[in-house]
Formats: sequence, structure tokens, C-alpha cells
Amino acid sequence: MQKNIMNYETVALDDKKSALLILDQTRLPYKVEMLTLTDQKAIWEAIYLLQVRGAPAIGVAAAIGIYLAAKEIDEDGFDMFYEKFKAAKKYLASARPTAVNLFWALDRMEDVVLQNKDKPVSEIKALLHDEAVEVKEEDIRVCRAIGENGLSLIEDGYGILTHCNAGQLATAKYGTALAPIHLGHEKGYRFKVFTDETRPLLQGARLSAFELHSSGIDTTVICDNMASQVMKNGWVQAVFVGCDRVAANGDACNKIGTSGVAILARHYGIPFYVCAPTSTIDMDTPVGEDIHIEERPAHEITEMWYKQRMAPEGVNVYNPAFDFADNELITAIITEYGIARPPYSESLREIFEKKRKTQGK
Amino acid sequence: MQKNIMNYETVALDDKKSALLILDQTRLPYKVEMLTLTDQKAIWEAIYLLQVRGAPAIGVAAAIGIYLAAKEIDEDGFDMFYEKFKAAKKYLASARPTAVNLFWALDRMEDVVLQNKDKPVSEIKALLHDEAVEVKEEDIRVCRAIGENGLSLIEDGYGILTHCNAGQLATAKYGTALAPIHLGHEKGYRFKVFTDETRPLLQGARLSAFELHSSGIDTTVICDNMASQVMKNGWVQAVFVGCDRVAANGDACNKIGTSGVAILARHYGIPFYVCAPTSTIDMDTPVGEDIHIEERPAHEITEMWYKQRMAPEGVNVYNPAFDFADNELITAIITEYGIARPPYSESLREIFEKKRKTQGK
Repeated sequence: MQKNIMNYETVALDDKKSALLILDQTRLPYKVEMLTLTDQKAIWEAIYLLQVRGAPAIGVAAAIGIYLAAKEIDEDGFDMFYEKFKAAKKYLASARPTAVNLFWALDRMEDVVLQNKDKPVSEIKALLHDEAVEVKEEDIRVCRAIGENGLSLIEDGYGILTHCNAGQLATAKYGTALAPIHLGHEKGYRFKVFTDETRPLLQGARLSAFELHSSGIDTTVICDNMASQVMKNGWVQAVFVGCDRVAANGDACNKIGTSGVAILARHYGIPFYVCAPTSTIDMDTPVGEDIHIEERPAHEITEMWYKQRMAPEGVNVYNPAFDFADNELITAIITEYGIARPPYSESLREIFEKKRKTQGK
Repeated sequence: MQKNIMNYETVALDDKKSALLILDQTRLPYKVEMLTLTDQKAIWEAIYLLQVRGAPAIGVAAAIGIYLAAKEIDEDGFDMFYEKFKAAKKYLASARPTAVNLFWALDRMEDVVLQNKDKPVSEIKALLHDEAVEVKEEDIRVCRAIGENGLSLIEDGYGILTHCNAGQLATAKYGTALAPIHLGHEKGYRFKVFTDETRPLLQGARLSAFELHSSGIDTTVICDNMASQVMKNGWVQAVFVGCDRVAANGDACNKIGTSGVAILARHYGIPFYVCAPTSTIDMDTPVGEDIHIEERPAHEITEMWYKQRMAPEGVNVYNPAFDFADNELITAIITEYGIARPPYSESLREIFEKKRKTQGK
């Protein structure tokens, strides 16, 4: 019997209802609610309010969202259709001005429009439908390939530690860091997964724990400062994390705390794996230090959801959103085109070479 | 001009009001309230509810508490007085059955009674008063000595990272880990202190940040998983932590997360100092592995104060209260009798030798 991963889809197109379906991540884990979004304002808000999050998932939501907008445009002539399409695109793009995948997906959809300008508008709409579906399918293929590559590095019974949520909830399916776990679970592997809660926003406790636990995987939530003890106990045989951006030398920028987990893993002799779709590897960024680290508002730490102050008024707060694991601490970088090993400046180039050849076929 | 440390006393005896004064730590930092406790039930509750916390502070509260109980005993004959004293002692001891310092302080007060059984009860009461005052003064002397020893290791302008609260709020004054900072601040040193918030109970964000910030010390709260980034930024020149128990080989058991901070400090080449009154050094415990690590309830992580669930129902939780820093990661152990350096099995013996000689004088 195949064990299925999480029963909830992160983001989906409902053709019958002409709706974008989104699992509302702002309510997890205390409320599991699928949103059925049919108008553009609701879709804009879902992206703006982080009801859908994670770069790949945002890309898929945007592709489906702009398709639904195009479908509703009541124009037969291309020029008028394209004007209204561009307005809809501009509107959706404004929902998260720093989300690269949002623009990437919308641009890709616009390319479909422009490359087919000589076709009837009805046909363009059908092509946009297929492209939105393909954006999602492509993400699933990438995540599945990362999962298969990652799974080759671990064994049944492993204890696995992860940080933040680079799981199905951040993608269309499987996730990146959690893909080897979900795939292994489908194949009957029994893992024991430890999820760092990941302060300040608790993506580990709220999201990773939710998707793993609801998939039937043995999941244990710990505070970030307990990872060392869990490793010392001998409970962890591998660490998997996702990443926001990988530099050409392999330095991997990811949710704040990642560098600390990497240092602990090195101390305890545990392999530390970064799961990275090639879309997040930036060969134009030489080293991690070149990556700007966003600082976020103090109240995320001092107040969080519970409104009661948790630190004295007026005290300083440092709240970096990310840090990076030095390449020397990373055992391997797992991509959809294979596994890169140190030295990364060479192995990542080879990964891109392989990607070029594969896409050239 | 001498800069004063925190304007609030953690625990004090008010002779005029015949009251135990306690800064209610369950309300910090959002409410600063001194409790004036005159009856035994209120004192019992203050200990039970953790309104006063930290082993030394609990000891002082217990000494003052049992003195106040004795003072109210309306008996002139020793036997009846002693019966009622023992009942009062048993009652206070039941407030926190695992707090060693609670029993230590109460036993010490009982010794005063027994050693003076031939004196009038009124004189015994006066001696109990002086002993309670001495328990507090002794704690202040110990903390001050630790502060002076620690201060010899750091310089004006240092960035200092600390974990949990081993500060004035856990003792009668100065604290242990924070004593070098408070003392240095009194002498005009300018430090930049980073307090790990210390999940799950946030003693760093709530308590250390409160006492440092209200003393006018430059204080920055960070989440536990940000310590690595703060160190990488070059902002930390020394780490000071307290401890719950030090084994004979120097392994230092302290609030969960301490081992991780020690490993990070080693990675970044930052000295890692453990501040330990000799009363916490247990020469009968050979190594850290011999120390039992208490596990606490899951809801501290999954719900905390804000009641809303932060992790899915039914998921596992691992919530160890402590871990220990391996002696090899500790640069020095700072006691009131001097600074111990590796190898600790020798240097800690020397510390105790010095203590014996000093007390023998």
C-alpha cells in the first residue's frame, strides 16, 4: 500500500469553479481551511497576506491567478485583451513586490500571450490554462527529482532534522528539503523527523510539523535551541534544509538559524544537506557575503501573535530573516539535476551544464 | 558617577512591615510589581508560582520566609516553639519539592534554632533574623566575587552574549553570568549585550533583557537561532552563561541551548565562560552524562502563554529543560574563589582547596 502525502493541496486550479484553491497557511495548524478564490481581489489578498507562501507556491498561485483573470476578459480583439491582461498582471504583481517567483510566473504567462498574438483570444486563453497547469506540474517534477536524489543519501529508520518549512506547503507538492522524507514515506521508509520550531515565525512548528504529521510521518517539534541536545542524543542521522539562494561557491542562504544548525551538524559529525532547485542557485553571486540579509520588524520577536510583550519596552532587537551556511559546512547540495559535492564552484557549474544539455534535447 | 544596577531588588526583608518583598517575575517584563508578603500562605505561593525563581534567590526568600514565620510564633518555651517552627519549615519546603536551595536555606535556619536551644526564644528569633540577612549578604558577596573574577577577563566595549537568566533576578544581587556585566557597568564599562530569548519560557527576553535594560546597559534581544549570525557579524567577544550544576570534569549543565551556544562560540573562536558559585559544583558527579536531564511538559512549546496552538494537535514534542556544555568547549569556569581553567578535574579541586583554606581561617 502506498502511503499518500498530506491530503491537502497547497495550491490548485479548480476548473469547474474557475477558482484558485489555497490552503490558508495563516491559520495553520489550528485551522485547516481551503480557500476557494474566484475574484482577483481575493487572489491578490491571499498572496499579500501570506495565505500562500514559499517561492514556488507563490509562482503557481500567480500563474493560476492570472489565467483566471485572463479567462474573464470579455474581449475578442487581441489589443484590448492584452491591455486588460497587462492591467491584471500589474495588479497581481503588486501583492508582494519582493517575491521574485511572482514576477517570474507572471512574465512567463505574458510570454504565452505575446507568442500567440496572432491566434484567437479564446485559443490564447486555452494556452494560458495549459501554461498555468504546466507551471505547477514543472514544480512538482523538480521537487520530485530533488526528493529522489535526496532519498539516495538516506536510509530507512533515519532520524532527520529540518529547519523552517521547505516542504509541500512552500511548493506545489513534496517540497524541497522535505521531498526526500515525503517520497521515502510513500515508499514505506520510516523516518523520525525533528522540526526546529523556527523562531520568530514558527514555520517549523506550525507548517513543517503540520504537513509531516498529517502525512502520518513520526514528527517531533523542538525549540531551535534543542537541536544540539537532539543531535547529542544520537537521534539525528541527517539534516535537510531548503534555501532561498545559493551562491556560486555553495554558500547557502536560508531561514535564520540555518548556519547554526550547520555548525552543530559538523560538530556532531552529521551530514548537512541543502536542497536547492537550480532556480535558486545564483551563479552570478560569488559568495554568501554578497547576499543582502533582510532585517524584519522587532515586534515579531517581542510580541508575536500573542500581543503580550515578551521583552521590555525600548530594548534593542536584532531580527535578521536569513543567514547562510558556509559551503565548507555543507555535505552536499541536492538539485533536480543531481547532487553537487565540494568543491561547489566546480560541481554547481557541472549541474548547470547538465541542465543546459537536458533542456537542449 | 557610579552607575547603579537595576533599581528593583529581587528579594528583600522589610523589617518595619515584617514582610518579604519580592519582584514578581511572572509578570515581567510587562508589569513591574513588588509583592509585599506577610503571611506564610502568600510566601508559599510566591515560591510555588515562580514569582521568585533562581536557586540563590529562592534560598534567600526561604530564609526570610521562615524567619517571618518564627517571629510570629507566640510561644516562650523552646519545645513548643520548635514544634511550630518545624511545621512552618515543612510547609515552606513543600512549595518546590525539587529546589535544593530551598531545603538548604531552611536547614541552615533550623541549625540556628537547634544550636541555640538553650537561649530564650526571643533571642533565637533575633538570631534567625540575622541569619536570614546573612544568607542574603553571603549570596551578594559570592556573586560580587564572581563578577570581579569575570570582569578581569573582559574589556570595555566588549560585545557579550548570554543565554537564559543567570542575573540579579535569579540571585540577591548581581547574578552569576551577568555579574561581570553589572559590575563592569558600575565601573563605567560600556558593553553591548545580546540576550538569547531562550525558548520555551523566554527567560532571556523577559528577564535578562529587563534587568540589563533597566540598569541602562545596551541590550539587544535575539531569538536563540540568531546567535550564530550575531557571532558571525563579529559582534560578540565573550559568552557568559550560568549553570545549574557543574560535574567534577567541568561539564556544565545549564538551561537547554547552552551546549549549542558553546559549540557556536568554539566555531567562531569566541571565549565561552561558565559562571558557577562553588555551591553548584558537584565533585561527586564525575561527568555531565551523569546529570539527569528533566523533561518538561509539551504545552510549554506548543501553546506557551498565548493559548493558541503553535504546533499541530497530536504531534510529538521533546522539551528538555537543560543540556550541558562539554568541558572541552569551556574556556574557563568562574567561581567566587577564582577562575578554573582546563583541565578542570585538577583546577576545580584547587578551587575547593582554596575554599576550604579560606573558610578555615
